[in-house]
Amino acid sequence: MRVEIWSDIACPWCYVGKARFEKALAAFPHREQVEVVHRSFELDPGRAKGDVQPVITMLTKKYGMSAQQAQAGEENLGTQAAAEGLEYRTRDRDHGNTFDMHRLLHFAKERGRQDELIQLLYRANFAEERSVFTEGDERLVELAIEAGLDADAARAVLADPAAYADDVRADEREAAQLGANGVPFFVLDRAYGVSGAQPAEVFAQALTQAWGDRSPLKLIDDGGAEACGPDGCAVPQH
Amino acid sequence: MRVEIWSDIACPWCYVGKARFEKALAAFPHREQVEVVHRSFELDPGRAKGDVQPVITMLTKKYGMSAQQAQAGEENLGTQAAAEGLEYRTRDRDHGNTFDMHRLLHFAKERGRQDELIQLLYRANFAEERSVFTEGDERLVELAIEAGLDADAARAVLADPAAYADDVRADEREAAQLGANGVPFFVLDRAYGVSGAQPAEVFAQALTQAWGDRSPLKLIDDGGAEACGPDGCAVPQH
Repeated sequence: MRVEIWSDIACPWCYVGKARFEKALAAFPHREQVEVVHRSFELDPGRAKGDVQPVITMLTKKYGMSAQQAQAGEENLGTQAAAEGLEYRTRDRDHGNTFDMHRLLHFAKERGRQDELIQLLYRANFAEERSVFTEGDERLVELAIEAGLDADAARAVLADPAAYADDVRADEREAAQLGANGVPFFVLDRAYGVSGAQPAEVFAQALTQAWGDRSPLKLIDDGGAEACGPDGCAVPQH
Repeated sequence: MRVEIWSDIACPWCYVGKARFEKALAAFPHREQVEVVHRSFELDPGRAKGDVQPVITMLTKKYGMSAQQAQAGEENLGTQAAAEGLEYRTRDRDHGNTFDMHRLLHFAKERGRQDELIQLLYRANFAEERSVFTEGDERLVELAIEAGLDADAARAVLADPAAYADDVRADEREAAQLGANGVPFFVLDRAYGVSGAQPAEVFAQALTQAWGDRSPLKLIDDGGAEACGPDGCAVPQH
């Protein structure tokens, strides 16, 4: 079974939701047969690369909240994150463009290091004092190295704005086609969807339901064909 | 959409079937949104690693064919391969255990080089005079390098019989669960199956049918949840 998770590094509920999903997955009897893939989704795709703001400022300007409302939201997120054993800085975090992080995550996927990198990006953005947005490519290269990627290769990906850009855009188009207008968004075997940072119990239910519901394949042209099996390579009679 | 192809390097119809599938894929309008994954299947899993035989000898001993029948089968395969633009040596090929090749293909998958490697392994086994079975690990390391993999890393994978062994076994269990008892076996979005080296037209039909049949996701707990969208990160009211 395959679970695809659309998310953004700048999305607090994605950070929390991933932990809740992983709690359910760890207890799922068929977890060894579950493959997890991360898909790109930008919450703020129109923001220019260098346009970085404090989270509270962004929330007040973009959504017209009061600073108090914005701060209360952050405190709530901090509480929810702590309940999942996650660190979450409720003050002085930055918000910025995440397109390069998504490009790097696609590179990491090709190298089998995607889950390692997304976890490090989340931690860097939500739990660490250093901003993940203001230090340029070298901060992301550091995280790529920590995820087990080659420094020069990661640097080359970041330096070339076209590298993996199509992969990010393709993920975003697919999210729209699947009806996801917010993240995190979980898709199980392209049959079941779970929207949002649901409780672990809901993910457990989704895993069980999708697993039980796997249907037999519909065979196209079941008339027999040229194939090899334990009894040799035959040309069956149609 | 995702297409998984179960196959074995020692399977001539897999070599031919891959070319037929790729012909259909190249003409498929949504080909950019099709991801292809190779899955492991051993035709002769009981054969010991060093037990190498000429193909004709294997066919006569294992399947009780006459040498003439076996040779005629090879000539037929050569004709079918040529029709797909593939080289195929109808004489003096070897047969042997492919487990290490499958382990290496899983390593290549992690590094984003699986399709390159499987193509090189097929070519080495079916089109080249040198045996891919008798020269030990270094022949496979050569092919790994040609596929863009790191030589030392490939060597380490081959030297450790446990490396990626579980991945190979998991693919083989899944093939059995999906009802595949021969290869090549193509699975589209875990919904449609195509067994054998069918004509390109059948693959084209399967791609079209699976694409058109993608069903809307069934949402689990559609009551709204903690998610972030273009309008901010909200805690919807259940």
